[in-house]
Amino acid sequence: MRLSGLFGERHRHGSAGADCASHDLLIRAGYIRQHAAGIYSYLTPGLRALRRLESIVREEMNATGAQEILMPIVQSADPWKATGRYTTIDATLVRLKDRRGHEMVLGMTHEEIVAQLAAGEIRSYRDADVVVYQIQTKFRDEARPRAGLLRTREFLMKDAYSLHVHEAGLDEAYRTQLDAYGRIFARAGLRDVHTVRSATGDMGGSSAHEVVALLDVGEDTIGFCAACGDAVNTEVLHGAGECDRCGGALDRKRAVEVGNTFKLGRRYGEALGAGIVDAGGVRHALLMGSYGIGVSRLLGTLVEQHHDEHGITLPATAAPFDGHLIAVGAGNADMGSRVHEAYGSLVRAGLDVLFDDRDVRAGEKFADADLIGAPLRITFGARSATDGTVEIRERRSGEVHDIAREDVVPAVLRLKQRLLQRGA
Amino acid sequence: MRLSGLFGERHRHGSAGADCASHDLLIRAGYIRQHAAGIYSYLTPGLRALRRLESIVREEMNATGAQEILMPIVQSADPWKATGRYTTIDATLVRLKDRRGHEMVLGMTHEEIVAQLAAGEIRSYRDADVVVYQIQTKFRDEARPRAGLLRTREFLMKDAYSLHVHEAGLDEAYRTQLDAYGRIFARAGLRDVHTVRSATGDMGGSSAHEVVALLDVGEDTIGFCAACGDAVNTEVLHGAGECDRCGGALDRKRAVEVGNTFKLGRRYGEALGAGIVDAGGVRHALLMGSYGIGVSRLLGTLVEQHHDEHGITLPATAAPFDGHLIAVGAGNADMGSRVHEAYGSLVRAGLDVLFDDRDVRAGEKFADADLIGAPLRITFGARSATDGTVEIRERRSGEVHDIAREDVVPAVLRLKQRLLQRGA
Repeated sequence: MRLSGLFGERHRHGSAGADCASHDLLIRAGYIRQHAAGIYSYLTPGLRALRRLESIVREEMNATGAQEILMPIVQSADPWKATGRYTTIDATLVRLKDRRGHEMVLGMTHEEIVAQLAAGEIRSYRDADVVVYQIQTKFRDEARPRAGLLRTREFLMKDAYSLHVHEAGLDEAYRTQLDAYGRIFARAGLRDVHTVRSATGDMGGSSAHEVVALLDVGEDTIGFCAACGDAVNTEVLHGAGECDRCGGALDRKRAVEVGNTFKLGRRYGEALGAGIVDAGGVRHALLMGSYGIGVSRLLGTLVEQHHDEHGITLPATAAPFDGHLIAVGAGNADMGSRVHEAYGSLVRAGLDVLFDDRDVRAGEKFADADLIGAPLRITFGARSATDGTVEIRERRSGEVHDIAREDVVPAVLRLKQRLLQRGA
Repeated sequence: MRLSGLFGERHRHGSAGADCASHDLLIRAGYIRQHAAGIYSYLTPGLRALRRLESIVREEMNATGAQEILMPIVQSADPWKATGRYTTIDATLVRLKDRRGHEMVLGMTHEEIVAQLAAGEIRSYRDADVVVYQIQTKFRDEARPRAGLLRTREFLMKDAYSLHVHEAGLDEAYRTQLDAYGRIFARAGLRDVHTVRSATGDMGGSSAHEVVALLDVGEDTIGFCAACGDAVNTEVLHGAGECDRCGGALDRKRAVEVGNTFKLGRRYGEALGAGIVDAGGVRHALLMGSYGIGVSRLLGTLVEQHHDEHGITLPATAAPFDGHLIAVGAGNADMGSRVHEAYGSLVRAGLDVLFDDRDVRAGEKFADADLIGAPLRITFGARSATDGTVEIRERRSGEVHDIAREDVVPAVLRLKQRLLQRGA
């Protein structure tokens, strides 16, 4: 992609109203634009980063045997009334009437819809122990959207649901999904990740966990017990100050919740008439688990962890581009044509390269490259015109590689591979 | 994917309430499930088909130089008030209030949001002549949802917007987008496609076209003039019965609108303060075009055109699986293990294969294969146990290929490639 045609400006100065570093940088680098409180548009770089994270989530979910489906955003209120959540959930659940006067809601999560689907599709234990998931835009009318992508009203979520007849099946799916979360967050390059016990909240059920990334800007407080090693979202403690397992003192840290898992029990199956006949011919209400990952929040969290004073330094797995190609002092027509040739070769090699083809000062080009944060900056400069050397600079480490012009494509492929392997 | 674990039943008998063949078959084959009037869930086969169409759309849009972005579903009513459409559009536009009492709408199209974005990002003619697009779930509260995916309330749409300062730029983008539509619908395997003049409707602007597929189940009536060769949506004629260009007699046919294009003029730019300074320093209101494709409607239309009495016969480009693997008379343990080996080899070769690993009658397996409609059925039958011959049957033509067991993978790859090249 050529920078001259990229829709969306970069900003040199801080974003008005931005209340954390990732919020500021995502706007300045042209990743996102605010439409209303907690509602954003994703411009090309932001959408590309989001899609890379979405691909990691999809690959790891598919590897667990989960099946991707797609459920409605606008839903009938009826199943929400059946489970009682139409009444118990506050204004976060958006209620509206359609043109015929039917009560509808905007999907903030899909337990009701999955249970309703399962009632029609799953009859016997032979069909049980399946996991379905979707990656979809959700809406929650949060009272206090804040911190850019960390707490929005409209957001991209992976929500998975496991369907069982017996507890053993749920236990196994629960472990499998938590294991997949570990792989997803590791591949995405998330740091300081912990799985902690959490409250079941609106979901109900017997047990719940959060996967969190430690960050001062986060809204959750995690308590780590030095005595028994337990980690817990302090919400669970209802204001008490010690470990609820052993009474030990807790070390408290702020964190962002990036994923959650719930053992929901049979509540949704009971309310929505979803039943399964076991091997002995006995009918049970459907037993469910649900498993969420906030994909857009993950992007915000990653930028919060991966940036410096010059801009975004996302890991290669999540960055919107593999490389950022620049020519400086390109008044020389010969060098101009060499850069264009290199761009063509990089694209043909399957690399996603942002090519700064603008006629602007070198300083502006370097500043934009740092801000957008492609992991490799490829510069055709003065030496390229004389001895044919091209500079490849790693965005995060600052490490510089001088490469002969004819070796640029293999060098970028090799460095990209190295960054992906290192998770950097 | 193994059929034993596939979420969603197939139905042998017609679907209650289905009002056309595609509606009936998409439900019977386990592609979709109705949630409410005009609102569907996509089960795995349906979502896979939708994603294949989405990929075709994305590739061809990117090839035109268009940039993918993602705009909000829940939108502030303010820009809709600025253009007047908050008042002029009927109940199809869903209006709601958020928890703070702000008036919001559900995105049914995004001209307002694009113009608002452009006001912040595009200042000079150097930034103009760009096309942005998204592939996103939209909601229109249609008075009469019908015919399965042909007219829904919630649907997947590709909506593109071109941004210009001069008419010449719009004219060129308009031609480029219509050319891309031709390639998209050809690759998808859509038949009897025509580009016709249409009414500008709610959009406003100077000129509009629809891309339609001729089908009796369609809601549009297209008039073809034998005298001057023009083709027009008869809406344009306001009840008059002859060609409005030459007065000739019209041959009328029913059709489904799968795409539309609008030259919108400067209305949205004016209303939302989006202005561009031209090369001479003169400021103009942003000139826009918009270009839609109903991706989920395209799936419904394709099934309407591609089915037989046994089920769905989608072209290989749109079918949810490349092949459907079956063993019959698999009591023989030796053959069972060979089928599993073949499944592993097909998957490792990068093929999307649905493997019917259930212990059910051969007739049920064949019926499900025909219903779901993978373009190639791969059968390990009696001859496979004796002389090692595997049967590959093309779903649409019924052509049968007897293949030596060890050649199954290359044969499937070759036949898949042939079908893709033929657009079959």
